[in-house]
Amino acid sequence: MSRKDQISKPLEGFLVLEFCQYLSGPSAGLRLADLGVRVIKIENPGKGDLCRILPIKDQWVEENSLLFHTINRNKESYTANLKSEEELAEIKKLISKADVMIHNFRPGVMEKLSLGFEQVKNINSKIIYAEISGYGKEGPWAKKPGQDLLLQAMSGLMFNSGDRDDAPTPFGLAIGDILCGAQVVQAILAGLISRNRKGEAVKVEISLLESLIDFQFEIFTTYFVSGKRPLRSAVNNAHPLLGAPYGIYETSDGFIAVAMVPLQELKKALNCPRLEAYDQSMVFSKRDEIKSVLVDFLKEESTGFWMEKLQSRKLWATDLKNWKQLKQTKGYKEFELEQEIDIPGSKSIKTNRCPIRINGEKLWGAWPAPNLGQHTASVKKEFELNDKPV
Amino acid sequence: MSRKDQISKPLEGFLVLEFCQYLSGPSAGLRLADLGVRVIKIENPGKGDLCRILPIKDQWVEENSLLFHTINRNKESYTANLKSEEELAEIKKLISKADVMIHNFRPGVMEKLSLGFEQVKNINSKIIYAEISGYGKEGPWAKKPGQDLLLQAMSGLMFNSGDRDDAPTPFGLAIGDILCGAQVVQAILAGLISRNRKGEAVKVEISLLESLIDFQFEIFTTYFVSGKRPLRSAVNNAHPLLGAPYGIYETSDGFIAVAMVPLQELKKALNCPRLEAYDQSMVFSKRDEIKSVLVDFLKEESTGFWMEKLQSRKLWATDLKNWKQLKQTKGYKEFELEQEIDIPGSKSIKTNRCPIRINGEKLWGAWPAPNLGQHTASVKKEFELNDKPV
Repeated sequence: MSRKDQISKPLEGFLVLEFCQYLSGPSAGLRLADLGVRVIKIENPGKGDLCRILPIKDQWVEENSLLFHTINRNKESYTANLKSEEELAEIKKLISKADVMIHNFRPGVMEKLSLGFEQVKNINSKIIYAEISGYGKEGPWAKKPGQDLLLQAMSGLMFNSGDRDDAPTPFGLAIGDILCGAQVVQAILAGLISRNRKGEAVKVEISLLESLIDFQFEIFTTYFVSGKRPLRSAVNNAHPLLGAPYGIYETSDGFIAVAMVPLQELKKALNCPRLEAYDQSMVFSKRDEIKSVLVDFLKEESTGFWMEKLQSRKLWATDLKNWKQLKQTKGYKEFELEQEIDIPGSKSIKTNRCPIRINGEKLWGAWPAPNLGQHTASVKKEFELNDKPV
Repeated sequence: MSRKDQISKPLEGFLVLEFCQYLSGPSAGLRLADLGVRVIKIENPGKGDLCRILPIKDQWVEENSLLFHTINRNKESYTANLKSEEELAEIKKLISKADVMIHNFRPGVMEKLSLGFEQVKNINSKIIYAEISGYGKEGPWAKKPGQDLLLQAMSGLMFNSGDRDDAPTPFGLAIGDILCGAQVVQAILAGLISRNRKGEAVKVEISLLESLIDFQFEIFTTYFVSGKRPLRSAVNNAHPLLGAPYGIYETSDGFIAVAMVPLQELKKALNCPRLEAYDQSMVFSKRDEIKSVLVDFLKEESTGFWMEKLQSRKLWATDLKNWKQLKQTKGYKEFELEQEIDIPGSKSIKTNRCPIRINGEKLWGAWPAPNLGQHTASVKKEFELNDKPV
């Protein structure tokens, strides 16, 4: 299957080498690939990216986990043993032709392999060198494992979701990896712009911890300024900094989300007698009381009943959809968010497309994830590396 | 106070006009500003960005909410009534000098003001035009309010956090706004690279819904391929796709996070008799049972007790920190994540810095958020706009 691009993508012509495993770095590589970059994963010849064998809900596509396929479509795979002098020399030749390299090895590993930034600059004076870590390269935490759940635990993030008396509540997705990956893409593209103007190599660094603290910048700033840690509401928390009624409410047959709705508007829409005791000045000081009144009141009628009252006044509220309900809507279908990926010698799989649109066009990228080392030979030939058998 | 840059930032020299309110667009503007871009907020002369009056935990800095300050530091403010022909003409002159404009108005609003992409291209043939919406510009949902909690509710996101029998659990921060803002920055920078090569204007679009579906790409792909909706575990869920023991566990004096730890390793570390009945092949099929065994067992001893056992074997586990505990650690302090912002005529406030490092340097950007229209006169003078009194 050839790489079919429906439109000319904005980053065509750039070459990125991805020395990465799991999610943070590979998700950055995926976004860059969807924007048109050519991404070659550099993997060790034994197991490769360990994500290949990370089972997610026990879903597999041939010998690789479904997760690996999801994150690594639209890339090539080149295997090299970086501890072999000969193979390392080939990698350095490849680096000399690349625009960007990304790695998420533990601090010090790349330097030992003579692939640290200062060393690579001597091979390629215009490289953008992107480095992802759990906790930065130095300091007391540098050697801690950079795993998403552990970083959530260290960053205070788990005190945003759930209610006040709940246990610390994790965000149920790998939010640190995804945010860090998104920021690495930002930094790499800023680096490319800078390099194109000044002609000099740029090193960019991000750590998962800094990504997760940045994500909480409103929370931290509020804490710094007020001296008090923001508290989740005891009832129906949806954001520690927001007053009543902000939250999810159970109805007689489902749930509704109510966002920033002024209390006087809510009173008019709902006709709830017990709400009359409160006004807008109390949405913080009486947050839990107001929410409790709404909890009792809203569970008495159906989602449809309440939504009619709220939406007729254009108030910020909605019913909830699970993935199945969402997939069945006309709205979802019109987005054309799914793409089919043909996997040679296997079933095809369906996955999401890139969320960015360029000049009105969706970005498709349905090249399947590579088998380990699938492109070693073709890359060697193209870049005139030592072409002994692998 | 002048704009002091410790280092030459990668995007210096670019001009971005931000026609945005609240969080998604302004968070993109903030990141671009921290990377060196000059950002001018275009605000209406009445209230400006409504975030100025959005109270977060009732924290205010003079007449603006603390939240506004947090998101809009490092920017200028220019007020214009876009419905006045004269003031609109000035804005168009400003657009002719800009590299990028971002807006998050409802679909159709910019076109009515003659500021849609096709119209703006005639003023500036090299503009990067970035458009943020809740649900895209067309289709049955285009007119729905693009608010974070409502988008979380529509996208299925709330079925990732919390346990299986819990109500749908919101992510307790404005995750849709933040991810969408991050992706807009990616798209804008890709657009700038493309424009610098081809000399043509680029339009980039993102919607909050697409951002939140993209965020769940592992979940959706698993659902597409397996035909079954992933389920949160009934006990200690931390990611619907991951098997036991992945989760947060209460101890006798706190909580610990346990990530991907092979069951045989966990058995050796903990010496838990009831765990002996299970092996690695059961981490999905018996997920809740295994987690329940651990819940009962781990609550009997202290965090310190368990951490010693887990960390001596280098297993992926950690104690939890809240914001206060985190702030007191040596690790956090060495990151230098805080910066002081002097607000003229008011107290200074402390906030976070950008998480990206360039060539080993942190990016500081402590210019305070502008008062409404603070830079109207200076911008008019600099760009030789009609300089009648505002």
